[in-house]
Amino acid sequence: MNYNFADRVGTLQPSVIREILKFSSVPGMISFAAGNPAPEAFPTKAIKEITERIMSERPIEALQYSVTEGYVPLKEAIRARYGELFGENDQIIITTGAQQVMELTTKSLCNEGDTIICEAPTFIGSLNAFRSFNTHLVGVPMENDGMELNALEQALKDNKNTKFIYCIPNYQNPSGIVTSLEKRKAIYELAKKYGVMILEDNPYGETRFAGDAIPTIKSMDTDGIVAYAGTFSKVISPGLRVGYAIAPAPLISKMTVCKQISDVHTAIFSQLIVHEFMTKYDYDAHLAGLGEIYRKKSDLMTGLLDLELAPRVAYNRPSGGLFIWCTLPDQIDMLDFAKKAVERKVAVVPGNAFLVDESQPCSSIRLNYSTPTDEQIEKGMKILGELLSEY
Amino acid sequence: MNYNFADRVGTLQPSVIREILKFSSVPGMISFAAGNPAPEAFPTKAIKEITERIMSERPIEALQYSVTEGYVPLKEAIRARYGELFGENDQIIITTGAQQVMELTTKSLCNEGDTIICEAPTFIGSLNAFRSFNTHLVGVPMENDGMELNALEQALKDNKNTKFIYCIPNYQNPSGIVTSLEKRKAIYELAKKYGVMILEDNPYGETRFAGDAIPTIKSMDTDGIVAYAGTFSKVISPGLRVGYAIAPAPLISKMTVCKQISDVHTAIFSQLIVHEFMTKYDYDAHLAGLGEIYRKKSDLMTGLLDLELAPRVAYNRPSGGLFIWCTLPDQIDMLDFAKKAVERKVAVVPGNAFLVDESQPCSSIRLNYSTPTDEQIEKGMKILGELLSEY
Repeated sequence: MNYNFADRVGTLQPSVIREILKFSSVPGMISFAAGNPAPEAFPTKAIKEITERIMSERPIEALQYSVTEGYVPLKEAIRARYGELFGENDQIIITTGAQQVMELTTKSLCNEGDTIICEAPTFIGSLNAFRSFNTHLVGVPMENDGMELNALEQALKDNKNTKFIYCIPNYQNPSGIVTSLEKRKAIYELAKKYGVMILEDNPYGETRFAGDAIPTIKSMDTDGIVAYAGTFSKVISPGLRVGYAIAPAPLISKMTVCKQISDVHTAIFSQLIVHEFMTKYDYDAHLAGLGEIYRKKSDLMTGLLDLELAPRVAYNRPSGGLFIWCTLPDQIDMLDFAKKAVERKVAVVPGNAFLVDESQPCSSIRLNYSTPTDEQIEKGMKILGELLSEY
Repeated sequence: MNYNFADRVGTLQPSVIREILKFSSVPGMISFAAGNPAPEAFPTKAIKEITERIMSERPIEALQYSVTEGYVPLKEAIRARYGELFGENDQIIITTGAQQVMELTTKSLCNEGDTIICEAPTFIGSLNAFRSFNTHLVGVPMENDGMELNALEQALKDNKNTKFIYCIPNYQNPSGIVTSLEKRKAIYELAKKYGVMILEDNPYGETRFAGDAIPTIKSMDTDGIVAYAGTFSKVISPGLRVGYAIAPAPLISKMTVCKQISDVHTAIFSQLIVHEFMTKYDYDAHLAGLGEIYRKKSDLMTGLLDLELAPRVAYNRPSGGLFIWCTLPDQIDMLDFAKKAVERKVAVVPGNAFLVDESQPCSSIRLNYSTPTDEQIEKGMKILGELLSEY
C-alpha cells in the first residue's frame, strides 16, 4: 500500500539530536549530546519510600483512571510553592512532561500558517512541536542577555498573524543564556503592545547553581497574556513524565479538551510520587544538592574548555541548566568538526539543529555536562582539544 | 485579552460523559456512566512487589529519560504474546494509553477535511480525537453483528478522501456488539478494494467472559492496511497509561515523530511495571480472574434489567467489555429519561453522545457494570425500573 501521510508530517523528521544519540550506544562513545539529568541527582531513596507507601496505603488511587486536569493535591502543592506564577484568572493543568505543554498550546492557539516567534537558536523539541501544526516560525537572534529586541519588534510588525512568542529565559537550551530582567520586561511589553501571547518555558530555573534568580515573565503577567511551562523532569525525574502549564483559564480549558483526547490524563502513579516528594521531603535541600552536582560538573567541563579549547573556542560560563554553547573559530567548518568528533567517539550536537532554518550558517556546537561521568568529561574534552589543534 | 483559539478547537467540547461524571462526586450518586475497571480487578499485590523490585534493583532505569518508541523488552513481550497481530512489515510503538493511538494515527494520516468512517455509535474519545484535526466524520449504522456493510460501501463510494475506517470489533463501546468473523473479513476486503486503511481498536478483547474469541482484523492483514490499537488499561491498570499501536513500519515511523513532540515517551516506570507483570506473573490466570469478576457483575446487572426494565427496554447480554447498551421504548424521550435518572441519583450516558452528529435521534442509553459496587447496581437498577414504570 502507498501510504499518504498528512501534509503536516510529510517533511517532519526525527530530531537530529536523537539521530546523534543513536551513536551513544556505540561501545566507547562519549556523549556530550544528550540532555539527561545526572543519575546521581535523582532522589531514588525518597522515591523508593514513596512508592512503597503509595502501594501499601492507596494502590487503587495509583492505578485507577484519574482526571484530565491533574491530581488536585499536586496542583495545590505547585500553587503553594510557586504562587507568584498565578495571576488572578490563571489555572493549572498537569501535563505529560513540559513537551506536552508545547503541543497543547500550539494545538489550542494556532491555525496552519499562524506565526510563532522563537529565540534563535532554541529547543528543537519545541520547534518540531510547532512545525507539526504547520505553523510559520520566525527566529529572533539571541544576544548575551536574551533576544535582540529590535529584531523581535520587527518580527512582530512583519507577522500580523503571530500567536505567541516562545522563550526560555533561564539557562536557555541550547545557548545557556539567561534573559536579563530588563529584557524580560521589554518582551512582555512588546507582546502586550502587539496583542500576542508569550509561551515561557522554564525547565531549568531550579537547576541554578550560581548568580541570583531573576523573576519569571509569568510573575509579571497582569494582563493574562503569558502561558508558563514547568516540569519536574530536570529536578526530580524525567522518566515519570510530569510537567504542568499555568495559563489564563480560557486557554487551560482548551488545553484540557485537547489533552483529554491525547492521553486522557498523565500517569497518576507518577503524579502521586511527585506530590509526595514535594510535600513530605525537603525540596529545597534536594535542589541545593542538585545544584552542587551540576556546579561541579560544569566547573570540570569549563576548566577543560579553558585548558584544551579556549580562547579559539568561545563560550559562556553556565550558572544553571545542563548545557554549554561553544562557538568555533570562523575558519572551522562546524559540521565537519562535529562529524570528526563522532568518528573519535565524542558526540556533540551541531548548533544548526536548533535553528528555525537548519540550512542557515552556524559555527556553534552544544555540549552537555549532566549526562557524562567525570571521567568521560575529562577524556572527551581532551579528544575535542586534540581535534581542534589539527585545524 | 481576547483569546483567539485555533479553528480546530473552537467548537470542541469536553465529552458529555465527563460532564455527567461530575455528578458522580455528588453524595449518594450511583454512577453507571463511567468506564473504570473494577478496583478489585487490579493486580495490586503483584504491582506492589514489582515496584519494590524495580526501585531496589534498577531505580535509575525507572526514572531516567527513555526512548520514544517504547521500552524494548515490553515491545518484545507484546510481540511474543500477540504474534498474530504482526505482519511482515509491522512495527510497534508504546503509547500513553490507547487514546494516544487515535491521536497519533489521525495526526499522521489526515489532512483537514479528510474523511474517517466510524461505527455509529462509537467511542466518544476517538470521535473527539478525530474532530480535533478538523476531519470529516461519517457514521455507519451498527447491526447486531457489526457495521451495515452496504452503508459502509456507500460511505466509501461517497467519500473518496477517506483515510481510514475506525472500528472496535470486540465488545464495542458503547453498543457492546461483537463484529462477526464474516463481517471482519468483509470490512477488510472493502478497505482493500477502496484503498483505505483500518484503525482497529481493541481495548476490551481480553475482558471476554463468554463465547469464543474471534480473530482480529489485524491478524488477517496481509496487505499492510491495518493499524491496531492495544492497551493495558482495562486488564492491568488505566492509571499507568500504557497502550500500544501495531502498524506498518512507515506509519509507525510517522507516529514516532509525532509522539516525540507530544510527550517524548510514555512514563518508563509504568512501562517497566507492565513488562514485569506480563513476563513474571501468570497473565492468563489474571485474565481468567478478571473475566470472572466481570461475568458476575454483568449477570447481576442483566438479571436486574430482566426483572425491572425488560422487555420494554431492549438490550444484548454482554460476553465481554464493560457496558450494556439499553434501548428505550419509542414513546420515551431518552434525554428526559437520562435527566430524570440523574435527579434520582443514577447517572447514565445518553446514547446520542456516541454519534457523529449528536443531534441525531437516539433512544438508547449506556450502562456500565464494572465501576459500581454490587449494592449500587441493585439500588440503581431498582431506581431505573421505578422511573421507567412512571412513563
